[in-house]
Amino acid sequence: MREVAVIGVGIQKWGELWNRSIRDLFVESASKAMTDAGVDHIDSMYIGCMSSGLFAAQEHLASVLADYLGVTPAAAARVETACASSSLAMRLGWMEVASGLSDIVLIGGVEKMTDVTGEEATFALASAADTEYEGYNGVTFPGLYAMMARAHMDRYGTTLEQLSQVAVKNHANGALNPDAQYPFKVTLEQVMNSTMVAEPLRLLHCSPITDGAAVVILCPADRAGEFLKDRPRVVVTGSGHATDTIALHSREDITWLKATEVAAKRAYDMAGVGPGDIDFAEVHDCFTIAEIIVTEALGFFERGQGGPAAERGDTAREGSRPVNTSGGLKSKGHPVGATGAAQIIEVTRQLWGEAGDRQLPNPRRGLAQNMGGSGGSTLVHILERR
Amino acid sequence: MREVAVIGVGIQKWGELWNRSIRDLFVESASKAMTDAGVDHIDSMYIGCMSSGLFAAQEHLASVLADYLGVTPAAAARVETACASSSLAMRLGWMEVASGLSDIVLIGGVEKMTDVTGEEATFALASAADTEYEGYNGVTFPGLYAMMARAHMDRYGTTLEQLSQVAVKNHANGALNPDAQYPFKVTLEQVMNSTMVAEPLRLLHCSPITDGAAVVILCPADRAGEFLKDRPRVVVTGSGHATDTIALHSREDITWLKATEVAAKRAYDMAGVGPGDIDFAEVHDCFTIAEIIVTEALGFFERGQGGPAAERGDTAREGSRPVNTSGGLKSKGHPVGATGAAQIIEVTRQLWGEAGDRQLPNPRRGLAQNMGGSGGSTLVHILERR
Repeated sequence: MREVAVIGVGIQKWGELWNRSIRDLFVESASKAMTDAGVDHIDSMYIGCMSSGLFAAQEHLASVLADYLGVTPAAAARVETACASSSLAMRLGWMEVASGLSDIVLIGGVEKMTDVTGEEATFALASAADTEYEGYNGVTFPGLYAMMARAHMDRYGTTLEQLSQVAVKNHANGALNPDAQYPFKVTLEQVMNSTMVAEPLRLLHCSPITDGAAVVILCPADRAGEFLKDRPRVVVTGSGHATDTIALHSREDITWLKATEVAAKRAYDMAGVGPGDIDFAEVHDCFTIAEIIVTEALGFFERGQGGPAAERGDTAREGSRPVNTSGGLKSKGHPVGATGAAQIIEVTRQLWGEAGDRQLPNPRRGLAQNMGGSGGSTLVHILERR
Repeated sequence: MREVAVIGVGIQKWGELWNRSIRDLFVESASKAMTDAGVDHIDSMYIGCMSSGLFAAQEHLASVLADYLGVTPAAAARVETACASSSLAMRLGWMEVASGLSDIVLIGGVEKMTDVTGEEATFALASAADTEYEGYNGVTFPGLYAMMARAHMDRYGTTLEQLSQVAVKNHANGALNPDAQYPFKVTLEQVMNSTMVAEPLRLLHCSPITDGAAVVILCPADRAGEFLKDRPRVVVTGSGHATDTIALHSREDITWLKATEVAAKRAYDMAGVGPGDIDFAEVHDCFTIAEIIVTEALGFFERGQGGPAAERGDTAREGSRPVNTSGGLKSKGHPVGATGAAQIIEVTRQLWGEAGDRQLPNPRRGLAQNMGGSGGSTLVHILERR
């Protein structure tokens, strides 16, 4: 299979974007990405979207978006694995280019979440859990992650301060990201005293409801020079995809994320590296407990040590293993279908040296981890500067 | 890229299956397909489903189905392009095997359409059209295809008898298919006098609302012998995917299906064949006018000659170019996300010589054409016996 490079990225400032519909959001980011890459056509596109049906009464989404982007009759596919949908798009776009089937492939994601009521949004998001069991019994995602947090606290001594420190760190990063939905700092005291949502998780432990899109253009690495000009070459060296039980109650251990462990192993094996070789990562902090468990499941820290590592500042921009320099889902926002593609954009920008005020010093290898639901699916990608 | 073979298929009798949920439908068909292939594991799976969100309040569908099939942590993706969703799954599964990334890949589709009211089902199906324009103005799919039918009648002289003859022929085939939802014959008089739905389309010109699933197992052609035993080898020689404008009002010509023409050309080019080399086909007869236009856009007949060809019996089982030996969407049923995979099953069974009472004499090359909405997306696959 051929090596695949990123040649262009596009995103807008995320938030409650009342004046733009789902097609507007996508076309804006996609046009930026195509301009950034300097391409005037695409062979094919993959779009991640969790629930355009429940949020926007629009299925057949890939054709809607291809039409409004003006790229018909190009092949266009909408793909879905809940909040990891656009990482799935990334994997399939990578596969199509790597296989030799196509050269210029657009991948991305979009979600328009604010055109429905809060109750309807909660209902739509709950459809990423097991509707017939978890949904029927009224569990919401804050509730599911709260159970994981409580169990992690009980078993490993993880503290509320540690859960809160993740939010403080991600908002400190997001304050440097002009595209973030909430680009401001928060203090430990503000997080710990914010409104209770599902004990022990408070409002500032939770990612928000967001409208947004993110798009990336891929091509074979040996053609990347045509488009990149002075930019360094960033290639995909690893892609891993794994599933776990859809329901939390079916797991052996709710303090662990097995799909993340397995997807990471698959990506590490493909790239021929281990967790110690990763310079920085974007991970799925839908709730702050998720970032703590994910950093353990990726092998960055021992089991139970994600909380202390966050508290010590290991995952801060200045730490030994920066995590979520973009601000993460917490500060940047979480338009669920678009989150994975935005992670790829942040990793690429860091490797290109184009991350502005939040730029890391000379990173060479970054990882993106994106999951659906309470961890029923996970995708991990590794990108390297060559 | 490697050549890919079909090594197992699974389907159930479709219909209004009140006692089975979406996961039950899928697991039943998938278990049959895995048993048929003689595989005890899969590397990956792709599932087409148009709207599990609106029909079953369940997104994150691939993880639900992988979990209930018992194949976690295998990679699992749900893919969507309205009524062509499981042909998209077929294309991606083919790509994954052809690329060399995986060996044993499950593809399929499922839709559970009868757990909502008729009004809710009409709303969900309308989400395959342009919600912001067509949907807002109240057009439904019978209405869209009725406009195509009226325009085709006006331009080419296509008659109500010709539209009706497609239903008579497909029901005659479906009467020989034990898995069909409506396995009975209808007369020309019954079709032409059935309840008016959207002038000129009457009830028996329309495909029904259906619950069902269909699953196919793929592997590299050079490993197919391990699984096929005495069965002939059936390989995928062509795959084409194209889009068109989502809305009918944006088309240059509403009597044509450009995405079908383009997807077919891509598949023919890949297979190195033309329309004259196709022995038989399964096509997307969501409304009988669709089969007439599709047989023109595939190049089987000249523009405007699809109606006379149907009337002459050219597309009957005994005709020069049998179309929809399975009964088509009209008689077999149309669980939208599962329809494409069921077409692949019929083509495979015909090539294996396992199509029972509807078996064609010694066919060597079959085509499956599946489209979303009013033709905003189309996939075409060509399968050959080797």
